[in-house]
Amino acid sequence: MERVYNFSAGPSMLPFAVLKQAQEEFVCYGDSGMSVMEMSHRSQVFEKILEKAKSDLRTLMHIPENYHILFLQGGGSTQFAMVPLNLMSKNKKADYIITGQWAKKAAEEASRYGEVHIVASSADTNFDRIPEFSASDLSLDADYVYITLNNTIYGTRWHALPDTGDIPLVGDMSSSILSEEIDITKFGLLFAGAQKNLGPAGVTVVIVRDDLLGNAMDFTPTMLRYDIHAKNNSLYNTPPTYGIYFMGRVFEWLLAQGGVAQIQKRNEEKAALLYDFLDHSKLFRGTVVAKDRSLMNVPFVLPTEELNQEFLALAKENGLVNLKGHRTVGGMRASIYNAMPKEGVAALVALMQRFEQTHQ
Amino acid sequence: MERVYNFSAGPSMLPFAVLKQAQEEFVCYGDSGMSVMEMSHRSQVFEKILEKAKSDLRTLMHIPENYHILFLQGGGSTQFAMVPLNLMSKNKKADYIITGQWAKKAAEEASRYGEVHIVASSADTNFDRIPEFSASDLSLDADYVYITLNNTIYGTRWHALPDTGDIPLVGDMSSSILSEEIDITKFGLLFAGAQKNLGPAGVTVVIVRDDLLGNAMDFTPTMLRYDIHAKNNSLYNTPPTYGIYFMGRVFEWLLAQGGVAQIQKRNEEKAALLYDFLDHSKLFRGTVVAKDRSLMNVPFVLPTEELNQEFLALAKENGLVNLKGHRTVGGMRASIYNAMPKEGVAALVALMQRFEQTHQ
Repeated sequence: MERVYNFSAGPSMLPFAVLKQAQEEFVCYGDSGMSVMEMSHRSQVFEKILEKAKSDLRTLMHIPENYHILFLQGGGSTQFAMVPLNLMSKNKKADYIITGQWAKKAAEEASRYGEVHIVASSADTNFDRIPEFSASDLSLDADYVYITLNNTIYGTRWHALPDTGDIPLVGDMSSSILSEEIDITKFGLLFAGAQKNLGPAGVTVVIVRDDLLGNAMDFTPTMLRYDIHAKNNSLYNTPPTYGIYFMGRVFEWLLAQGGVAQIQKRNEEKAALLYDFLDHSKLFRGTVVAKDRSLMNVPFVLPTEELNQEFLALAKENGLVNLKGHRTVGGMRASIYNAMPKEGVAALVALMQRFEQTHQ
Repeated sequence: MERVYNFSAGPSMLPFAVLKQAQEEFVCYGDSGMSVMEMSHRSQVFEKILEKAKSDLRTLMHIPENYHILFLQGGGSTQFAMVPLNLMSKNKKADYIITGQWAKKAAEEASRYGEVHIVASSADTNFDRIPEFSASDLSLDADYVYITLNNTIYGTRWHALPDTGDIPLVGDMSSSILSEEIDITKFGLLFAGAQKNLGPAGVTVVIVRDDLLGNAMDFTPTMLRYDIHAKNNSLYNTPPTYGIYFMGRVFEWLLAQGGVAQIQKRNEEKAALLYDFLDHSKLFRGTVVAKDRSLMNVPFVLPTEELNQEFLALAKENGLVNLKGHRTVGGMRASIYNAMPKEGVAALVALMQRFEQTHQ
C-alpha cells in the first residue's frame, strides 16, 4: 500500500523518516533486548530516553532553566481544568480571549473554578480572525491571561502575543508547537497535545514557570497538580512511555532539519503555496482574514456544497485525504503540520488548479 | 540483538507475535495509506479499531451490556481520584481494604473527598497476605467497597471476592486483568492500567456499571467524569489511539490463544513452576503466604543481600532481566504476565536450581 498525503487536523501525519526508524527498532531497541513499550519507566534505558527528549525540547524551544518540562496525559481537555485548578490561586479570576471552540471550552471549564472574564471574542464572525482588544481590556487582578496560539478548526493564529505585563500568559499551542519560533519567556505556562506536531496522541507537553507551582486548589486531584509532576520529573506514575520515546525521535528529526527556525521557513513556504493560490483563485476562497492566517491549518471553500463534495472526492482519489473541513466552517481544511512535505502541498495546489480550470 | 526474558513489573513484556504484527503494519495500516498513529480518531478506520477492541474485550471478559467499557488516560493513579469523585455520591463514605501500597494510595486520595473506612489491612506483616475480615466489618452505608485484586509489589492476590451485597465493589485489576477468569457482575467498577497485561502505558481500561454514572461531585473536572466518557464512547477528546489499537491486537491474540480460561491455565502452570521450586528450595524463599499467592508477580529472597545481588547479576548475564524486587520487599520479583512464555519461567527456575546447587 502506498502512503497518502494526510491532511488530517490531528492525529495527523508524522515524519516518514521517524516512522521508519521507529519501525526498525520497534521490537528491539538498541541493545536493550526489548521494545520501548516493554521497558520499565524506572529503568536506566528509559530514563535516558526521557532526559534526552526533555533536553532536546529545551534546545529546540530555547526554554530557560526556570521552566519545567512535563510530559503528562489527558490532552488539552485535561489542561482546561489543570490550568485554573493550579493557577487561579490568588484572585480566583482569569482573562480568556476566545478565538475558537477550544478557547471557549477552556473558558467554560475555568468558570467552574473561579471568575472568567472574556476579554474579547471573534465568535460573531465565526472566528475568522484574532479579535482586536486593547491592553486596558485586560483585568488588572487576573491570575492569568489565556490564549490559543493557533486555532485548528478556524485556521487563525496569533502573529503577535498580547502584552500582559506581570500577569502570567497561558497558551494552548497544541496545533502549532515547534512549527514557528516563539519567545517562551513571554509565557507562564504553555501546553500542547502531542498529536499534531509532536507524536502519537496520549502525551501532553506542559512547559511551566517554576514560580507558578505549588498553589493548587485544595480539592485538586493529585494527578492534576503540576507541582507533583514537576517534583517527580514526570515519573510520579507510569508515563506514556512509548509516546515520549516517539516524540523524542521527532525532536531529533527536527534538530537534524536545522531546528525550529528552519522548519518555520519551510512551513511559511508551504503555507504561501496555498494562500497565494487562494488569493488569486476565482473559484476557491480562504475563510480567514489575511493578517491572522495560520501556518498549520488552511480552511477554504468552493462556491457550493456540491463543488466542495466533488473536490473532496477527487482529492481522495488522488491520495490527498482528510481534507474535509470542520462542520462549523464547512468546505475544506488542509492541515499542513511540520511532517507534511512540501510535495504534499504542491500536489494539493496542482489539483486545485486543475479543478478550477475544468470548472470555469 | 537477541530479545531477553523481561520480568519487569510494568511496563512489561508484550506478546512477541503482536509486536511483530504491529511492526509490520507500523508505517501503513491495511489499505489506509498511513500509520495508526496518524489517523484521525474520528475516522471510520479508527472507529472500527475502537469498536473491535471494545467488542473483543467484552467477549474475553464476558461483560454484560449494562457495563460501559471506557478507554481513558492517566493510569491507575488518576482512577484513585476518579473513583471517589464519581462514586462517593450518597453518603460520601467508602470502605477500603489495604493490601499494599497502591490500595493505600487509593485510600489516601479518596480520603480527600469523603470518609474512608479501612476495613482491614495487612500492613503489619508487610502485605504478605490478603487480610482476614468478616462481613460485619464492612460499613452498611459505604458508597462502595474498594480492593486491589492483584498486588504487584507484594505478590498477593484475592482468590475469592468479598461479598458486599448491594454495595458496589470497585476493583483495581491493573496487574491481573485478563490473566484469570473473574465474574465482572460482582463489580460496580473495575479498572486497569494497560502496561502490564494489555499493551503500552498510557491507556486505562475502565469497566463501569451503567447505574453508577451521573453522580460526580460538582467540582469534578470534566475529563474525570465517567459519564462524559461513556456518553462519548471514549471519544470526548482525542484518546490514546495507538495504545487502543495495540491493546486491540493483544485482545485478538488472547482470543486466538483460546481466551482467558486457556491463558489462566497457562498462567497457573507458569506460576506453579516457580512456586513448586520455592516450596522445595533450601536457599530461595517465597515471601507470600501460600494461600494468597499471585499468578502474576512472584517475589522471593535469598538468605543474604549479597546472595540476592549475586543472583540478580547472574540472571542478567543469562538474559533474564528486571528481576530486582521492589525496595519495600527486597530480593527478587518475577513478574510473569500473560506475555511471558513458559520457556522464560523455565529458564529462570533452571538458573535458580543451578544457583542453589553451586551455593550448597
